[in-house]
Amino acid sequence: MALLFRNATTLTMTAPTEGHPLRANVGIEGNRITMIDATGERTAEFVKRNADNLTDIDAQGQILMPGLINLHTHAAMTLMRSYADDIPLMTWLNDHIWPLEAKLTTDDITLGARLGIAEMLEGGTTTFADMYWDEAAVARQAIEMGIRTVVSPCFVDGRMEGFESDVVECVTVAKECDRVSVRVAPHAPYSCSKANLQRGLEVCRELNLAVHLHLSETDDEVAQIAAKYGCTPVEFIDSLGYLDLPAIAAHCVKLTDRDIQILRDKKVGVVHNPQSNMKLSSGTAPVWRLQQEGVSVALGTDGTCSNNDLDMWDEMRSAALLQKVSGNDPTVLPAYQALRMATVEGAKALGREGELGIVAEGALADIILVDTSRPHFHPLHDIVSTLVYCGKAADVKTVVVDGRIVVSDGVVVGLNYTELYTEVDQHVARLIRK
Amino acid sequence: MALLFRNATTLTMTAPTEGHPLRANVGIEGNRITMIDATGERTAEFVKRNADNLTDIDAQGQILMPGLINLHTHAAMTLMRSYADDIPLMTWLNDHIWPLEAKLTTDDITLGARLGIAEMLEGGTTTFADMYWDEAAVARQAIEMGIRTVVSPCFVDGRMEGFESDVVECVTVAKECDRVSVRVAPHAPYSCSKANLQRGLEVCRELNLAVHLHLSETDDEVAQIAAKYGCTPVEFIDSLGYLDLPAIAAHCVKLTDRDIQILRDKKVGVVHNPQSNMKLSSGTAPVWRLQQEGVSVALGTDGTCSNNDLDMWDEMRSAALLQKVSGNDPTVLPAYQALRMATVEGAKALGREGELGIVAEGALADIILVDTSRPHFHPLHDIVSTLVYCGKAADVKTVVVDGRIVVSDGVVVGLNYTELYTEVDQHVARLIRK
Repeated sequence: MALLFRNATTLTMTAPTEGHPLRANVGIEGNRITMIDATGERTAEFVKRNADNLTDIDAQGQILMPGLINLHTHAAMTLMRSYADDIPLMTWLNDHIWPLEAKLTTDDITLGARLGIAEMLEGGTTTFADMYWDEAAVARQAIEMGIRTVVSPCFVDGRMEGFESDVVECVTVAKECDRVSVRVAPHAPYSCSKANLQRGLEVCRELNLAVHLHLSETDDEVAQIAAKYGCTPVEFIDSLGYLDLPAIAAHCVKLTDRDIQILRDKKVGVVHNPQSNMKLSSGTAPVWRLQQEGVSVALGTDGTCSNNDLDMWDEMRSAALLQKVSGNDPTVLPAYQALRMATVEGAKALGREGELGIVAEGALADIILVDTSRPHFHPLHDIVSTLVYCGKAADVKTVVVDGRIVVSDGVVVGLNYTELYTEVDQHVARLIRK
Repeated sequence: MALLFRNATTLTMTAPTEGHPLRANVGIEGNRITMIDATGERTAEFVKRNADNLTDIDAQGQILMPGLINLHTHAAMTLMRSYADDIPLMTWLNDHIWPLEAKLTTDDITLGARLGIAEMLEGGTTTFADMYWDEAAVARQAIEMGIRTVVSPCFVDGRMEGFESDVVECVTVAKECDRVSVRVAPHAPYSCSKANLQRGLEVCRELNLAVHLHLSETDDEVAQIAAKYGCTPVEFIDSLGYLDLPAIAAHCVKLTDRDIQILRDKKVGVVHNPQSNMKLSSGTAPVWRLQQEGVSVALGTDGTCSNNDLDMWDEMRSAALLQKVSGNDPTVLPAYQALRMATVEGAKALGREGELGIVAEGALADIILVDTSRPHFHPLHDIVSTLVYCGKAADVKTVVVDGRIVVSDGVVVGLNYTELYTEVDQHVARLIRK
């Protein structure tokens, strides 16, 4: 199967054009981008070669760019969107989120993931790194809906049971589909005993899996780890050996100079979740400083209980704005850097630089087309700036993952929305019943 | 002319239901809401009474709520959207914004306003308070496009010429249309001499006009006023007599305890512009504290050079999130309060409480219908929370101002978008030519 997008305003996010869009015909064969033709000279040959099986699309006036990478979320929690807001953190967890989570079945997790994936796809997210339990169910939903995912079965004290079998099942599912990979997710340094953390590390090593964890999110966490182990959360996790494996670490709000050095030296992919950090009043991660020190920082939405959507456009904007106001400097985290965080840096954190997060010949065909017909895209003095400061999830009209069109005209291809929402309401009614 | 919206999920933002939506048939006659029928008992009579001229709309599954009030913007600047971003404030102004502004003709201002109003209407803004020069041109655009506006001809040192005639012209235009009112806009305490400020005040008094100004936006402003007058910007403006008139003051980022007392005692309507304050790194206004102290705080987007859109949904969300992270407390500025800032408090700041910013019998018919068919509106545990934390400008499908449908199916009725964008591009090409 081949796809051709003609006359797209193409933002490659890679050398040599980087953030400078070029007018090009972009061709996809199988699951790879095989042609970026800015002169028009190679298009006839592309069409001829794929004449039997070509979808030929006029992309005039649309911005063709890499799909977005949401590097930290909990898709199944979408069932709890706006369930309990604006209340103190511990009340929120103890009285609302945890009791409801305790009731979640595999069916609920499947359904929450379906809803979350639908929202992500519509908004142009083509890869998401998820963390939850029953992640094999999330992986299966991802396979069915055509998105790319990194599922990360999570363990936490009091919920070790099921973790290892979930990991094994995820690995099995991942073997069936290139779009799925697996990481091990220790919930956080404060919520897992040392023994459990050590067992989790063994699982990583036994199955050759990378890591995805929450790290140094709040002052409370820092205080707890200091009291228990006499060091910082980053130092503690590093001392166990976790950071010698490829790791993505969500939040990293509270960091010492030494922590930053460790994150850089161990090439940890930091995942910034600005809206979650703001909503839960966790604080402002030192993103700009991390970037200046050479740490790779990607972007995530976190779950819908603390955001409350899975909108990477809002997240890019919030990342840029929050760094400027907290740093007292309007020049930090410029638009292009915010866009890189949602694309190139996400790919880098996953060890897939050059293959994901860019539009390049040979790269995986995970791309989106952004419609510029609404007033907020006019005039178009600067495409990158306009995308980051004005772009909306609803502007994404076409999404391609792995060479397949999964969103067309703004909606997920083949998804019965009415059925989905009805099912969601039924599950939620059961869950919130006392 | 009469409108009937049947079975709408109605958020009145007023007693007795406040933020608790009720299922109702909402009827509009002329430019007023005349029926909110939750039992269905009065609808037949409404239909009968208006049989000759009724538009009858099924609003099932949509949220009917007050139109949003953008209480501080510079609509004409929309021509400079994303023109120069992520650079230091003084470079931005001196090398980019001001030189381009100097070239703006009345035609440019008319066109920029048209584009800005289109964006605002699409996103559910039904009233905007504007500040610029040639405001009569903005008022005429507002009349033509059906939005409600408070135009505020602006004076600043070096640009006094034209100010008074603009005020007089705006007053004349306002007499033709109920949807237009006029305020006098001193640009800011630091940018206007004392003599000019005094002259501006005389104009207010001669023509019985209220005030709209920038106030205490940055540390620089505070330092300049302290050096020049030995007091704070709020104290200085108050000492001249401005705050004895009805006034809306944009920004109010840097405030002393005494400033807060003055703003409360003089019943100044503070306009918070969180995204602009973040983007320009001005700081975080003490919104929550102002509200606790009894100061009315409304919401504005500021112009598109510092935002870069006119999206009040983004702005509500940013307001709530920024207060939480800066106040280190997830309970401050809860969702309903953010929604009030964009509706009820805006009306209050304009002295139109009970008439605008609410859905009530007898109130002006400025309402919007929000579509809930996208995934980010599911499940719907809490409508207010979901609107504020997940709602998007693109979810607004129908907008009524003054009893007239001005946006239908998400687009401005009767607007030729292609023509508008072509004209914008032509004007911009001329403006940016060296």
